[in-house]
Amino acid sequence: MAATAVVGVGMTRFAKQEERSLVGLGAEAVRAALADAGIRPGEVEIAFVGNVFAGRLLGDMTVGQDVLWEVGVHRVPVVNVENACASGSTAFFLARNAVASGQAEVALAVGVEKLCVPDVGLLTQGDHELETQLGFVVPASFALRARRHMTEFGTTVEQLAQVSVKNRRHAALNPLAGFGRDVTVAEVLASPMIADPLTRLQCCPNADGAAAALVGSPAVARRLGRAVDVDAAVLCSGSYENPQDLVRWETDYRACRLAFDEAGIGPGDLDLAECHDAFTISELLHYEAMGLCEPGEGGRLVAGGHTALGGRIPVNVSGGLLGRGHPLGATALAQLCELVTQLRGEAGARQVEGARVGLAQCMGGEKAADARSCTAVILSV
Amino acid sequence: MAATAVVGVGMTRFAKQEERSLVGLGAEAVRAALADAGIRPGEVEIAFVGNVFAGRLLGDMTVGQDVLWEVGVHRVPVVNVENACASGSTAFFLARNAVASGQAEVALAVGVEKLCVPDVGLLTQGDHELETQLGFVVPASFALRARRHMTEFGTTVEQLAQVSVKNRRHAALNPLAGFGRDVTVAEVLASPMIADPLTRLQCCPNADGAAAALVGSPAVARRLGRAVDVDAAVLCSGSYENPQDLVRWETDYRACRLAFDEAGIGPGDLDLAECHDAFTISELLHYEAMGLCEPGEGGRLVAGGHTALGGRIPVNVSGGLLGRGHPLGATALAQLCELVTQLRGEAGARQVEGARVGLAQCMGGEKAADARSCTAVILSV
Repeated sequence: MAATAVVGVGMTRFAKQEERSLVGLGAEAVRAALADAGIRPGEVEIAFVGNVFAGRLLGDMTVGQDVLWEVGVHRVPVVNVENACASGSTAFFLARNAVASGQAEVALAVGVEKLCVPDVGLLTQGDHELETQLGFVVPASFALRARRHMTEFGTTVEQLAQVSVKNRRHAALNPLAGFGRDVTVAEVLASPMIADPLTRLQCCPNADGAAAALVGSPAVARRLGRAVDVDAAVLCSGSYENPQDLVRWETDYRACRLAFDEAGIGPGDLDLAECHDAFTISELLHYEAMGLCEPGEGGRLVAGGHTALGGRIPVNVSGGLLGRGHPLGATALAQLCELVTQLRGEAGARQVEGARVGLAQCMGGEKAADARSCTAVILSV
Repeated sequence: MAATAVVGVGMTRFAKQEERSLVGLGAEAVRAALADAGIRPGEVEIAFVGNVFAGRLLGDMTVGQDVLWEVGVHRVPVVNVENACASGSTAFFLARNAVASGQAEVALAVGVEKLCVPDVGLLTQGDHELETQLGFVVPASFALRARRHMTEFGTTVEQLAQVSVKNRRHAALNPLAGFGRDVTVAEVLASPMIADPLTRLQCCPNADGAAAALVGSPAVARRLGRAVDVDAAVLCSGSYENPQDLVRWETDYRACRLAFDEAGIGPGDLDLAECHDAFTISELLHYEAMGLCEPGEGGRLVAGGHTALGGRIPVNVSGGLLGRGHPLGATALAQLCELVTQLRGEAGARQVEGARVGLAQCMGGEKAADARSCTAVILSV
């Protein structure tokens, strides 16, 4: 794959923002990314826009065109993509491929989501599926994983809660994260039970928001400066071969392995990581898939403080989904905004000192206990 | 752009099929394409799946993974795409680029749509847009275009009706088209008025269906044989510069021009075309954008029989949207199935004799009177 770089990023605040429109959010993120790069709207040659729920919640289609029309990105190919929570990184995967293949010098990836609308109800991942109808909604599925991890590896509810404590504390250092505050393990565990053992403060909050990244060729990167190299961008879907193993998504392990292979590095080379902490248990499972610890050791890794800011390998310094909130289509691009900000040394109070290599892992949807889509992106300076 | 070929196609019947599931339809089309090519599911390296309404009508997301899981296409990158009626050709655009860039030897494009569900109601293209709320729904917008074409160029309601007569007659020759029958101009004009001057038989019917195409590298095409060359695959979005011109979509003209440029041919080199006849007026406007006649001459072109089977340049020999029905995400891939079938000389009773070059034009959504997305694909043998 030919060299590419992230030449600009931008995002809105992630929070419950009922008064804001999808187009307004998306346009703000794209304008911020263009300004960050120093690129005019007319220089964008192709655009990929990730969104999940606009059809279902707003009755809208082709929302990417709406957003890009608003900011003045006209005439170019626009592709709306959906891969559940990995929609934003799927857009990035395509933008990167468009530049790497020489199809474009500058490609735009956008993620945008409007979840906080009146009467939204429960957002399931397949109303017509037997699993859903039988009550196996997303939190229940993750609760099963948590129970299995506890049984198999001795993970404790306190260790689970520490993921939420850490990420909400990180989020308090991030002005764009809507759910940052100091919470204690006791407070996390005392919050209302959603699906045993996962309490409400262990589930990521719904949010509205948008994020964007501009991918450029090496020539564009040289011209603009401040570029961050794309060392790997992997997208894969599930094999669905091991539905019985609740603590190991084969797809997650595979996506991370393929990304390390492409970048020619290993987990020990990472300075920071962002991962898809939809629930506290998710982050532990993703530690293990990313190779930050041995399988089963996730609970002890967080409890030892190793993944907190200042620790050996800080994870979700942005606040993650738990601390930032989770506007589905935008989440994976917010992860990349965070990596770019960190790798440029512009993260202020939450800066990971000397950060040079970062991994963003994301995962979208489940099917028979494996992931429908999983992405892993490695960036470096 | 490096050489690529369509190495296999497959589609379901397009019709109202309330008893069939989205996954069942999609899987049937993909299995048919794999069988047509002589390719095993495991040989597909990347897949793009077009769908518009699953989120809104079925509460589903990542439907591509559901379909591909069913047929045994596992582990590879899967991208769900949405570009309104051009979703299927957007999937094809990406599949073609994936192969042309060397990212894959075999890429799959699928389009699938389930529209005929209980209580579906009116499917607008943006419930929250002022235009929609004021009653400017899709048929009304096309009715305005028809009136303008009649005023500006002397087009008659009889000429409009002849598009429907022709396409439904073509559809009667296509066993996969659900709405084929002999209708007369008088019958078309006497059907209930939807938006003056467009009567019900001038509006494409909702339908359920799926279609798929496999794109291969030249090496794969040589190995499999029966391949059809991809000479151009263009996707563009609107410029929104001329909202006042109701009979000329700038995007439509541009997409067709770019496709001719890429293929190095002109309209006179075409042996047949498929276009997006969502309404009778649409086909006339697309004739003009494709360069099959001068602007304003569309009505006279169809009235002269030139676009019927046996005419100078047959258009929508498949039956088009009017005769085949319009499962949004699948429509543009059904156009490509028709071109491939024709170019291989396998179209039976509706075969265009000696067909060697075909164009498929598609258009998705509208925004301020321009198209949100427009695609043009040229195939040849």
